[in-house]
Amino acid sequence: MFKKVLIANRGEIAVRIIRACRELGIQTVAVYSEADRDALHMQLADEAICIGPAKATDSYLNMQSILSAADVTNSQAIHPGFGFLSENSTFATMCQEMNVVFIGPDSETIEQMGNKSNARDLMIQAGVPVIPGSDGFITDTEKAKELADKLGYPVMLKAAAGGGGKGIRKVYKSEELNAAFNSAKTEAKAAFGDDRMYMEKIIEHARHIEVQLLADHYGNVIHLGERDCSLQRNNQKVIEESPSVAISEKQRKELGDIAVRAAKFVGYKNAGTIEFLLDQSGHFYFMEMNTRIQVEHPVTEMATEIDIVKEQLTIASGYKLTIKQKDVRITGHTIECRINAENPAFNFAPSPGKITYLMMPSGGNGLRVESAMFAGYVIPPYYDAMVAKIITKGADRAEAIAKMKRALGELVIEGIISNQFFQEDLLADERFVNGSYDTSFLQDTFLKEWKPRVE
Amino acid sequence: MFKKVLIANRGEIAVRIIRACRELGIQTVAVYSEADRDALHMQLADEAICIGPAKATDSYLNMQSILSAADVTNSQAIHPGFGFLSENSTFATMCQEMNVVFIGPDSETIEQMGNKSNARDLMIQAGVPVIPGSDGFITDTEKAKELADKLGYPVMLKAAAGGGGKGIRKVYKSEELNAAFNSAKTEAKAAFGDDRMYMEKIIEHARHIEVQLLADHYGNVIHLGERDCSLQRNNQKVIEESPSVAISEKQRKELGDIAVRAAKFVGYKNAGTIEFLLDQSGHFYFMEMNTRIQVEHPVTEMATEIDIVKEQLTIASGYKLTIKQKDVRITGHTIECRINAENPAFNFAPSPGKITYLMMPSGGNGLRVESAMFAGYVIPPYYDAMVAKIITKGADRAEAIAKMKRALGELVIEGIISNQFFQEDLLADERFVNGSYDTSFLQDTFLKEWKPRVE
Repeated sequence: MFKKVLIANRGEIAVRIIRACRELGIQTVAVYSEADRDALHMQLADEAICIGPAKATDSYLNMQSILSAADVTNSQAIHPGFGFLSENSTFATMCQEMNVVFIGPDSETIEQMGNKSNARDLMIQAGVPVIPGSDGFITDTEKAKELADKLGYPVMLKAAAGGGGKGIRKVYKSEELNAAFNSAKTEAKAAFGDDRMYMEKIIEHARHIEVQLLADHYGNVIHLGERDCSLQRNNQKVIEESPSVAISEKQRKELGDIAVRAAKFVGYKNAGTIEFLLDQSGHFYFMEMNTRIQVEHPVTEMATEIDIVKEQLTIASGYKLTIKQKDVRITGHTIECRINAENPAFNFAPSPGKITYLMMPSGGNGLRVESAMFAGYVIPPYYDAMVAKIITKGADRAEAIAKMKRALGELVIEGIISNQFFQEDLLADERFVNGSYDTSFLQDTFLKEWKPRVE
Repeated sequence: MFKKVLIANRGEIAVRIIRACRELGIQTVAVYSEADRDALHMQLADEAICIGPAKATDSYLNMQSILSAADVTNSQAIHPGFGFLSENSTFATMCQEMNVVFIGPDSETIEQMGNKSNARDLMIQAGVPVIPGSDGFITDTEKAKELADKLGYPVMLKAAAGGGGKGIRKVYKSEELNAAFNSAKTEAKAAFGDDRMYMEKIIEHARHIEVQLLADHYGNVIHLGERDCSLQRNNQKVIEESPSVAISEKQRKELGDIAVRAAKFVGYKNAGTIEFLLDQSGHFYFMEMNTRIQVEHPVTEMATEIDIVKEQLTIASGYKLTIKQKDVRITGHTIECRINAENPAFNFAPSPGKITYLMMPSGGNGLRVESAMFAGYVIPPYYDAMVAKIITKGADRAEAIAKMKRALGELVIEGIISNQFFQEDLLADERFVNGSYDTSFLQDTFLKEWKPRVE
């Protein structure tokens, strides 16, 4: 096992990793920006090194600075957490060259799965269902119409070189196709100097269901069941739960098998997640793979009683997986609510500032809080707005929800504005309670009806 | 299910019960003394009623006052917690007469099991092994010698009317018996006007092992495994764990069966605990039954994922037990450390006062904190010294200990003195780590060697 690990991150995930290291007897090195001099992660670590100014590009994204910190502290490995450098294949390669273990998959795997068209091709080869679309590029409107008729409307036209929403068109019926194709092509040409187009079917009223994987360096891969993350706003997950109420036991097994097959096909190592869309007729489509720990990993940890971060450290140290697929046991029902420093009444505008009073929910079985906050802490404006993740587990979904309501009812954060009441209202919505939501529900339905509480 | 429950207690157990009620959708009524105006339990409850001055006899032990509070708030039931009125059969009877459900066993059962000689007789009838001793009273030194030879030294001579340590003698060899018998008799006569004596064998180097029971109103009784509470100081438990490392799977089953048989024999209802002594040759002896929820109940809750307080409420509401014995599954290993406001360096003198800063351990799977503390809270000098219970669960005992060390390392309590460092030192002792301790270890060995840290 590693003797010393550097954590190349901040906030609650850095704290989470430090705690796992401590329980495994591993010394920890925190890195922090000038804006994080009082942050909890640097207080809790055995050593802490300042890696630059507040701006992330100067600190948490500064590869040289982080590698120097690893060097001077004799750290054997770097845990990148999520965000920042966690899916940066260049950084993974640099770690390797410096003889420091990057806690994650190989640099090549990060590269392969990070390129979405590449990942899609690999998944097709692995026999994993992908979102139906064009095989390569579409050269003219005739071909586009033919394919769209085959796929069924609505479809999405996408510029191959696309980015930032340019060169993308949703097409709902064949009469719109000609104009959409031509205008997207023109826009792509102007924006990227490249007007190659491809097409994907739009999966409407889908659910976002992802599978957590663990893979060691000896070809052993297991899955830890699924998480349903369909409640999203601007592609940001808001509430996650496991198991998903939308799939049957048969689908659960099928999905797990597909995910394990996909991970084996790409020679995956360490913890990772494959995200799928589930359409209304019960078909799964590969969406993307996250080659890192995810924000919502505690949901699976509580569901399975397996510590994914400890497994990451153990696997990266070179140990074989000791958990067999048949030993993975998902019990009860687990839900996570993300509490952010943001104002739902003003389009979720960030609300950084000083936390003047803080009372976290506590007590009872099946309640877990992941946070780097404390009373007196000043949330800097430079990074994400996460204040806490609250995770509850009950014998069934109703108990998990009741426990979450109890927990949110106890939470007191003074000094900043959070989405606490928004989460309470969402939890109380009957469409959440009966589990009938899909990925469009929160944005297209709930938020259009929702009235912020007047206080 | 009850609509409204009054909690006749304070501190962390009152908070614990309020949280369980909230998760079950039950309205809560807190009662508080004048010293507890700012206490967390009265803040968290839906309603709160002042029941008298600080002194417990004037408030938390004031039956009339509590029953009036139940009456004016239309509470259907009273949860007594532990301590205070929880094992007071008169109070249970008064509740019954007022048509308020006392959440616990029948008044008669409390009475029967509260009288230790009565309980011993009942257990003999139930075929439960009791500590070997005299059958009735010993009239002269001849009979005493005969019995002591039969039992084997050391033995304990006890005054039948005993209390406060009067009329009690430990006897290590036969030459001491005469003098001990006569002096104890004389002391008992002087103290109680009653010199009847009885004798019990002293079980040396025993372990304290207790079995958690749940019993409904329809004769269904199950046990939730055992807790090893052998680490005690002045008969106060300091660390508890489950499962016990001192017993085999066969003994575990035997002990569970005995406890269930005993509970059925006395027609037990609701949650209760039977405490046993385990001698060095592997025999169990009934010690006593606690006819209430215990301080250390979270150990079993984490071990089994069963919420004992919710079960108490459900059973008292008249529901049948839904958990079958075969469904009770104890996983991993769970440990509890009690954090008290006391100074181990000065013979554990109480240390009440204002908590100026508080940082509770948090995060990760398998960590639970039960507490009614918050920054700014003033611990009153009138009640017990409990600040928090920290409970950790690991896949095995080593992981549970590592997690506890991590948790204690994060705990920051400023303004008062606690036993935090004492607990850390105890956790680090190799005799704790290898599980070889018995009920005498903490007081007779550890504390004699222990040096408080100099800060």
